[in-house]
Amino acid sequence: MPAPSSRPSTRPAPTHDAWVARDADVLWHGFTQMAAYADNRPVVVDRAEGREVIDVEGRRYLDAISSLWVTTLGHRVPELDAALRDQLDRVAHTTLLGNGNVAAIELGEALARVVPVDDPRTLFASDGAAAVEQALKIAFQHWTNQGITTRTTYLAFGEAYHGDTVGTLSVGDGGFGTDVFDPLRFPCRRTPGLDRPGAVEAATSAIATHASSLAAVVVEPLVQGAAGIRPHPPEALRAVAEACRAHDVLLVADEVATGFGRTGTLFACEQAGVRPDLLCLGKGLTGGYLPMAATVAAGPVHRAFLGEDLSERTLYHGHSFSGNALCAAVARRHLELIEEWDVLANVRARAAQLAAGLDARVAGLPGVAAARHQGLMAGIELDPPADGLRWGRRVSAACVERGVLIRPLGDVVVVVPPLTTTEDEVERILDVLVAAVTEVCA
Amino acid sequence: MPAPSSRPSTRPAPTHDAWVARDADVLWHGFTQMAAYADNRPVVVDRAEGREVIDVEGRRYLDAISSLWVTTLGHRVPELDAALRDQLDRVAHTTLLGNGNVAAIELGEALARVVPVDDPRTLFASDGAAAVEQALKIAFQHWTNQGITTRTTYLAFGEAYHGDTVGTLSVGDGGFGTDVFDPLRFPCRRTPGLDRPGAVEAATSAIATHASSLAAVVVEPLVQGAAGIRPHPPEALRAVAEACRAHDVLLVADEVATGFGRTGTLFACEQAGVRPDLLCLGKGLTGGYLPMAATVAAGPVHRAFLGEDLSERTLYHGHSFSGNALCAAVARRHLELIEEWDVLANVRARAAQLAAGLDARVAGLPGVAAARHQGLMAGIELDPPADGLRWGRRVSAACVERGVLIRPLGDVVVVVPPLTTTEDEVERILDVLVAAVTEVCA
Repeated sequence: MPAPSSRPSTRPAPTHDAWVARDADVLWHGFTQMAAYADNRPVVVDRAEGREVIDVEGRRYLDAISSLWVTTLGHRVPELDAALRDQLDRVAHTTLLGNGNVAAIELGEALARVVPVDDPRTLFASDGAAAVEQALKIAFQHWTNQGITTRTTYLAFGEAYHGDTVGTLSVGDGGFGTDVFDPLRFPCRRTPGLDRPGAVEAATSAIATHASSLAAVVVEPLVQGAAGIRPHPPEALRAVAEACRAHDVLLVADEVATGFGRTGTLFACEQAGVRPDLLCLGKGLTGGYLPMAATVAAGPVHRAFLGEDLSERTLYHGHSFSGNALCAAVARRHLELIEEWDVLANVRARAAQLAAGLDARVAGLPGVAAARHQGLMAGIELDPPADGLRWGRRVSAACVERGVLIRPLGDVVVVVPPLTTTEDEVERILDVLVAAVTEVCA
Repeated sequence: MPAPSSRPSTRPAPTHDAWVARDADVLWHGFTQMAAYADNRPVVVDRAEGREVIDVEGRRYLDAISSLWVTTLGHRVPELDAALRDQLDRVAHTTLLGNGNVAAIELGEALARVVPVDDPRTLFASDGAAAVEQALKIAFQHWTNQGITTRTTYLAFGEAYHGDTVGTLSVGDGGFGTDVFDPLRFPCRRTPGLDRPGAVEAATSAIATHASSLAAVVVEPLVQGAAGIRPHPPEALRAVAEACRAHDVLLVADEVATGFGRTGTLFACEQAGVRPDLLCLGKGLTGGYLPMAATVAAGPVHRAFLGEDLSERTLYHGHSFSGNALCAAVARRHLELIEEWDVLANVRARAAQLAAGLDARVAGLPGVAAARHQGLMAGIELDPPADGLRWGRRVSAACVERGVLIRPLGDVVVVVPPLTTTEDEVERILDVLVAAVTEVCA
């Protein structure tokens, strides 16, 4: 047994305000206006138990955003902890560049058994955006390796979000004011999001017309998450996939948000019977414990890269921590637990409960424009009567006041509870939402 | 105590060849021609001890590449293991988007005490490439937030490597045949690498001439790593930094490879007395245990983003696992150990020994064009008399045969041992290099 490391002497200030001040003094939080950070009711987490996070003053919050859509089974899952400790006794990390490690191979085999991809090969990264970047580059080079140099662009959808690196920003639709980065983004063909009227026809027609210039179509299957939880029917996704197949365009499915059970099936593509050429994974891959992302390529795509050693057919791309053994060990155990615990059955039951509750109790509230849901992802779109009311912020803060951790996307209040959430917890989330919306918007 | 997880039933095949076959069947390794993977003497790691990795047949290899330049103190460091176990008992991960966590704040404070950046603010990511992407975007928006929309490009250097995402590829110089992705890359101004004759004059002159269009200059301080370990003098870096200051251009220091002691100081910039506006960290940040990267912004840069909540001045960028608590706890303990163990003194002593040995015993061998070194990074450039001889591969394989894990960059054999490497280990590496080069190139 290693001796426990001493807790730091830098904790003389146990109050929330002191921690927030220390935080803002040294950190820069993503998607956060740091000048307003302290005023927006941040929760500063010290520890967690199950589906609750506990702040520096001992207050408990139900983690109704799954720590930004990553936590699947909850926090401090004994089985995941054990997998991590076990691997720590073997090795934390060794490189996959030109070499192998047992933990990564075993995870690769476990993924191969469940991903909706033919003859799959998995290339790991750490940030979800990197998984999408890898898919974009693989799709692109898959064509140039065959001597086809005209397929240099992509079709992506209105309101799409695929990450924040320059390549993923390029296929994304520039939400959150990110069009400021236009001079850095490569151009991309775009048709309306698949929840919009006429979107399927627009997409399939664009694929047919522009196939010869398209490396791939990039889609968030079944639901555009960052757009404010905008679901589309499986038939829409299937039609796009069929158009890709018919016109020999690769399909990249970005399941960073939807993968690992979030929509009620292990992967959202399954509900449409779609088998993408490239599948992007992240967030829930490690149960929300550790940074790991992956790009799964179908065999035919992978084969376009096989050739002589050191030749130009090789994918010269790789991240230092690709296939990290600690992450891999947790991810593999996580896949086992999803099955052992029949997590997907719970997702479907709780998703039905959440949907019914939102429809019956929230959608009709004054100030609510719509309540959208897909599996255990929901977005309550508020309709403030004037600019600058910050309803999304205020409703979320009112939820946090009531012990339910919520974070908005603009004026959409997003609810993404862990996949193991209980019937009582879903009722509590609904109660708190009704109270918060009523308080702020009535 | 959690019960130990059972070892998987999927290990009936303990031989090296069987593991390599299983590996190639499901994984895609970065920077690796998978058709040649099995033939290139991969080491499939099962576990590790100290500075040795142990393969699936129990063979031990000195990890002379630090698992691709990430391992600093060695593998299975009891103190780092304890820090990770400790944090695991509190929480693995919670989001930094709009909220805080104690582990990330404490790491931010620890970094603030040591980084060569004024009034630093740290934005975390997981892949090193994402840290550079963040720096590029922050530099860019820093100007647009001030109403300056003409600073839309960057100056970077010949043979530069900054990562494999589209933004980082754009500032990189397209090595490894990655110019195939030119249609996706944004244009960039480029002057020769700082080890080249006239490079300082070319860079400072370009900065002076083009300042009004430059968001930033991006540089690998003291040594271009992926270019084949190409060092430049501190004076060259200082001259570039001074030109940036004089002409109001931001300086981005990409210390993903050099950070955390690799060059004998905690950060390479220190040797030139340079304080960059943006500092990119990765690889060694967690001692090579876990994926974590960071962009450290100077106060004045950060302040350009402060404004009203939800305003366009905000940096709308963030990765899911930013500030992961497990990674943060390990990274903070790692910083303490570097100081407690006086690791930098060892780096300087071993770097001097390695440099002297390379100069005396390797640089003059037949087939060797140059032996370059900077701290504990060295590159032995081979000079094959014809194309296709694959000397880099073969010399590395000959080292692996002798129990020293080496991986080449083309025909440059790269030696990057852990920072705690011993005098005996450096001698052993030199002995094995001499034998391998003699066997292959004589």
